[in-house]
Amino acid sequence: PMHGEIITIGNELLSGRTIDLNAWYAAGRLTASGLRVNRITTVGDDPEKASSAIKEAMCCSEFIIITGGLGSTEDDITNEIVANVLKRPLCLHKEMYGRLKRFVDKRGMEMSPSIEKMAWMPEGSKLLDPKGYACGFALEENNVHLYFLPGVPDQMRYLMDKVVIPDLLSRYKTLPVLRQRILKLYGLSEPQVAEALKEITGRRKEFIFGFYPHFPENHITISLRGKDEPSVLEKLNSVEKEIKEALGSYIFGTGNDTMESVVGELLKRKKMTISVAESCTGGHISNLITNVPGSSIYFLGGVVVYSNMSKEKILGVSPETLKSYGAVSDQTAKEMAEGVREVMKSDIGIAVTGIAGPEGGTKEKPVGTVYISMATGSELFSKRYRFWGTREQIKKNTAMMALDWVRRYIYGYSILSGI
Amino acid sequence: PMHGEIITIGNELLSGRTIDLNAWYAAGRLTASGLRVNRITTVGDDPEKASSAIKEAMCCSEFIIITGGLGSTEDDITNEIVANVLKRPLCLHKEMYGRLKRFVDKRGMEMSPSIEKMAWMPEGSKLLDPKGYACGFALEENNVHLYFLPGVPDQMRYLMDKVVIPDLLSRYKTLPVLRQRILKLYGLSEPQVAEALKEITGRRKEFIFGFYPHFPENHITISLRGKDEPSVLEKLNSVEKEIKEALGSYIFGTGNDTMESVVGELLKRKKMTISVAESCTGGHISNLITNVPGSSIYFLGGVVVYSNMSKEKILGVSPETLKSYGAVSDQTAKEMAEGVREVMKSDIGIAVTGIAGPEGGTKEKPVGTVYISMATGSELFSKRYRFWGTREQIKKNTAMMALDWVRRYIYGYSILSGI
Repeated sequence: PMHGEIITIGNELLSGRTIDLNAWYAAGRLTASGLRVNRITTVGDDPEKASSAIKEAMCCSEFIIITGGLGSTEDDITNEIVANVLKRPLCLHKEMYGRLKRFVDKRGMEMSPSIEKMAWMPEGSKLLDPKGYACGFALEENNVHLYFLPGVPDQMRYLMDKVVIPDLLSRYKTLPVLRQRILKLYGLSEPQVAEALKEITGRRKEFIFGFYPHFPENHITISLRGKDEPSVLEKLNSVEKEIKEALGSYIFGTGNDTMESVVGELLKRKKMTISVAESCTGGHISNLITNVPGSSIYFLGGVVVYSNMSKEKILGVSPETLKSYGAVSDQTAKEMAEGVREVMKSDIGIAVTGIAGPEGGTKEKPVGTVYISMATGSELFSKRYRFWGTREQIKKNTAMMALDWVRRYIYGYSILSGI
Repeated sequence: PMHGEIITIGNELLSGRTIDLNAWYAAGRLTASGLRVNRITTVGDDPEKASSAIKEAMCCSEFIIITGGLGSTEDDITNEIVANVLKRPLCLHKEMYGRLKRFVDKRGMEMSPSIEKMAWMPEGSKLLDPKGYACGFALEENNVHLYFLPGVPDQMRYLMDKVVIPDLLSRYKTLPVLRQRILKLYGLSEPQVAEALKEITGRRKEFIFGFYPHFPENHITISLRGKDEPSVLEKLNSVEKEIKEALGSYIFGTGNDTMESVVGELLKRKKMTISVAESCTGGHISNLITNVPGSSIYFLGGVVVYSNMSKEKILGVSPETLKSYGAVSDQTAKEMAEGVREVMKSDIGIAVTGIAGPEGGTKEKPVGTVYISMATGSELFSKRYRFWGTREQIKKNTAMMALDWVRRYIYGYSILSGI
């Protein structure tokens, strides 16, 4: 397979201030696309060290992905380094200049020298995303394809997926078609997933399988290279079917799906509305739901009831319930779910109450204890969970589980009892 | 300062299956100890690539930290590679053998060839932790100190802290002290920050300055090396003071501060409480506030009012206001802020309403238009903003700005009018 290297540039990576998630992301995407990564090198914002890393990589790579150092500050030195290493002059790139100009004009800013600097690029540079918002460029030298990406993770990932990978694959002559599926799971641990798929991955040797934990989800990638699209897709469909049979309702989505987008689609399809009452998740569930464009069609609203007073006043939870059973209890969760469904006039009401920690745990209700409840008018579900991890991990897992309840309810699957 | 490199070995790192937290940890610990990391190199379980990485590092390092490849499986090849690169024979290390023997005896296992393999070490190897549970060894060659650590994070971190760092520092005769400050800013763009600090960074050449965008924040790091702690701290204090004078109220925190933790501290100190009414941010503000442990002391609750009905019913926004001015308006924002303050009985009520996009914009109110309002009982603030970017970026920027209002209000700073 086509092989290459990744170089990440930034003092923050050598000082341990930042975890190198860009190298990790690039490595994962390249591998999943059937390309081979031979080495990852990290250097600081230091022209000499960065130059020698690029030179070393040039001698034995078909491609090099370089991230960082493209911004407008003094330590953003990649353009000059590249010009030096490849012995190409820095030229004013008209397309890039025009883009920077539009950017500053739109915001009523001045074109400063530090911004203009970004338009001085090594001769022969090709912008990766001429019309988009992410700046990056590509060069070819001695049959090595160099891609320079910004260090900002959003932009780096966007360019990697939309431009770099397709560009590399288009140069791959022999087995030109590569197709990939991503399956997203919730509710099984990584070893459980690996165990469940052992037989399939062992038998289906022609596929490249990848397993990636994305807390609290797990992702599976399946890649296959072949001569033509129909045969590749047919094989992918057949292995995907096998995996779906092995993992069943734990698979909540594919591709760019998120749990909240899947739940949103289901609610839209069923013309149902939802509302949320949150205690321990503190607004995280509402935040996820409303990250989906168009969610206002099915999401009527949420309440974050951190105090007993607000639980009583807004949701009508009875003071006796709070007194006898406590705010973190099955009874309170149920009254919250019914209350929010009532006040928001939604078809489904979801409620969570629990102890996110790090303080507030007791022997009976340790940190991570969470009650989830769902009211649908005709039915009232509720269950106690024990989640693990930091405060934010407990919030994330609780939110994910609550959304998964809605998905499972609409599909008619049974609700997960533990994780 | 003493300088060196880090090499991490493992196919799982090149395939993106595992995030390289070992390199990150080692880099952070070395930097914090005043040592300099020049490069991080990651290679697979491949004798040729690993050998050349070690050879390259040997030529220009005082120390090399190598993690991974020390286990008992087939792809654990570090011992042989080192023997090859340094041209030292593999010898049976008696201390190591005894330790492995005790390990298998204790578990009632047999001494297998794959376990015994671990005791065949390059001549001159010194165990790092002869009595402990973590296996690792050190070698010296041409004044380069090589440390071989297991890839298992627990063991790697344990050896790094207990053995490697103290060992390195003991060799470091004129140990300079390194201290670092991190300043966090909101409300200025990266070029604006660079411009504002140009004079200081140009004049104060002895410091290492770093600029890191963390959307929607910007971070500045200031590092200084010196002979003793008091003089280093004094100089850091003086440059920090200059920077604070140059950037004023845009600096919201230092070190591990977050906007929500800073706001939380201020509310606690003033014994004030807060509640939040969110439309376009959809729960993001409440979610941020409640990420702070102990936030239940000052956060009374939040409402996510995505529908007009919930704005009227829960917050008491008047139907006339919604009809005449619309849900995204100055008037609605103000009534939401007063309403949530009233219903939650908090000292401060914060409200945001706007268009997060990508749909829903109009000519008068394009995507990114947001109204923020704050009610404090005696005063009622409100302002219109225009934010840019994706739906999630607009949500993030709005939430950050709303929290910054609370910080600025308590400090008595003026509220930011644009960004």
